[in-house]
Amino acid sequence: MPSVCLCLTHVLGLCLGLLCLLFVTLWSAHWRGGFSWDGSALQFNWHPVLMVSGLLVLYGYAAVVYRLPFTWSQKKRVWKLVHAGLMFLALVLSVLGLCAVFDFHRFIHVPHLYSIHSWVGISAVVLFAVQWALGLAGFLLPCSPLWIRSSLKPVHSWIGKAILILSVTACISGINEKLLFTLTMTFFIFFKDENSTEPYSSLPAEAKFVNSLGLLIVAFGLVTFGILSNEKWQRPEEDAESVQVSMDAVTGTILLLIIANV
Amino acid sequence: MPSVCLCLTHVLGLCLGLLCLLFVTLWSAHWRGGFSWDGSALQFNWHPVLMVSGLLVLYGYAAVVYRLPFTWSQKKRVWKLVHAGLMFLALVLSVLGLCAVFDFHRFIHVPHLYSIHSWVGISAVVLFAVQWALGLAGFLLPCSPLWIRSSLKPVHSWIGKAILILSVTACISGINEKLLFTLTMTFFIFFKDENSTEPYSSLPAEAKFVNSLGLLIVAFGLVTFGILSNEKWQRPEEDAESVQVSMDAVTGTILLLIIANV
Repeated sequence: MPSVCLCLTHVLGLCLGLLCLLFVTLWSAHWRGGFSWDGSALQFNWHPVLMVSGLLVLYGYAAVVYRLPFTWSQKKRVWKLVHAGLMFLALVLSVLGLCAVFDFHRFIHVPHLYSIHSWVGISAVVLFAVQWALGLAGFLLPCSPLWIRSSLKPVHSWIGKAILILSVTACISGINEKLLFTLTMTFFIFFKDENSTEPYSSLPAEAKFVNSLGLLIVAFGLVTFGILSNEKWQRPEEDAESVQVSMDAVTGTILLLIIANV
Repeated sequence: MPSVCLCLTHVLGLCLGLLCLLFVTLWSAHWRGGFSWDGSALQFNWHPVLMVSGLLVLYGYAAVVYRLPFTWSQKKRVWKLVHAGLMFLALVLSVLGLCAVFDFHRFIHVPHLYSIHSWVGISAVVLFAVQWALGLAGFLLPCSPLWIRSSLKPVHSWIGKAILILSVTACISGINEKLLFTLTMTFFIFFKDENSTEPYSSLPAEAKFVNSLGLLIVAFGLVTFGILSNEKWQRPEEDAESVQVSMDAVTGTILLLIIANV
């Protein structure tokens, strides 16, 4: 029987994730002028929304699906497909988030990938892509033998948590950078901006709101990490995992067909 | 018998930590003009050095002492004292690092704790202080019963990893913020600075060097996290931990006497 504590932690993680999405969307929509896909600052606004949605919240939700107690009575291969599918969607959103900022940089003639924020962020997305491909090959494809799965599992689990750490780090450093650019630098260079007349250091309403988003991101990351780290909250292992191998071959083939049609 | 992999990972973590200390010291000493304790920018230079030394490297070294294979044949209470002592030193360095930046803020009349970097950083230090006090009360003091120790252990372990995540996040966002201030903002506001004539986005030598420090910090955090996360690398439990309780009372008393004399 799953513990009440696990269920409450899942609810907490779900709520924190939704709050992150709400806050990051409100920041871009209300404080930063909304969205567009024309290379302007309005296209940049997609960057925080897509990265927080994909690389953090959806990634976190996908990471904990095996630890949802109501799934334990169901076939693991179904939840493997859900896990891989949600991770794929998270990866697509993250790549779109990168496209948004790369287009914006081209538009304003600023080099890509110069800050440590961007170095950490791109490392997170590359590692995520490698992890997804390895996960597909190791856990879903028919040719993968059982000994490979059992060797790969702890590595997959560790890299999964490492991506979460990189993701939280990239989100927080990105928020810090954006607020310094849009509040402090705008204040000192132009003295006045249509969105702000105060520097970051005087903590205007936008800064308080976005700092709160930062705390929500950290809290979501730590709660997700807590769910993943508790050994007692793991899905109970089935008696004969080996019988799944042939069924996983079918799952893998279905997933490849889906990807081929995306 | 400890695995070769564990020993190599410890050596890797040790080297990465030392490289972090070297890089952060060189940054402050060579690129930012050195050290002082007079409220000026030279006092600020202590901030990254002390935070990386205390909150990251020494914290990380202290966190993994139970997983050093050569300690497994020795009495656990000795290594409890080493763990608590190193953590105390790490906490003192972190608090000194906060004093350095608070004095600098007062000197240049900038408010404290406005950025999300500072919110995450102060959360890390407060959580660290709470964790240290709880660890002392729960694992070293004579009045702590065995059932409290066993209940506290997973929480202590989880909070320990959470502090590491907050620490890496605070370090990376702090590095990003400092480079934006000292390179980009100085470039755009004054057009020329004695230390730099190029903005962060053009990746001058200092930016490349400090971004590399950022990568070293992330790598050190992930390696430390990897050592802490592998269940097979835990110190083998002694047969009768309960016999330690009376000895731990002596250890706790010694530690309290040391602290009282600091």
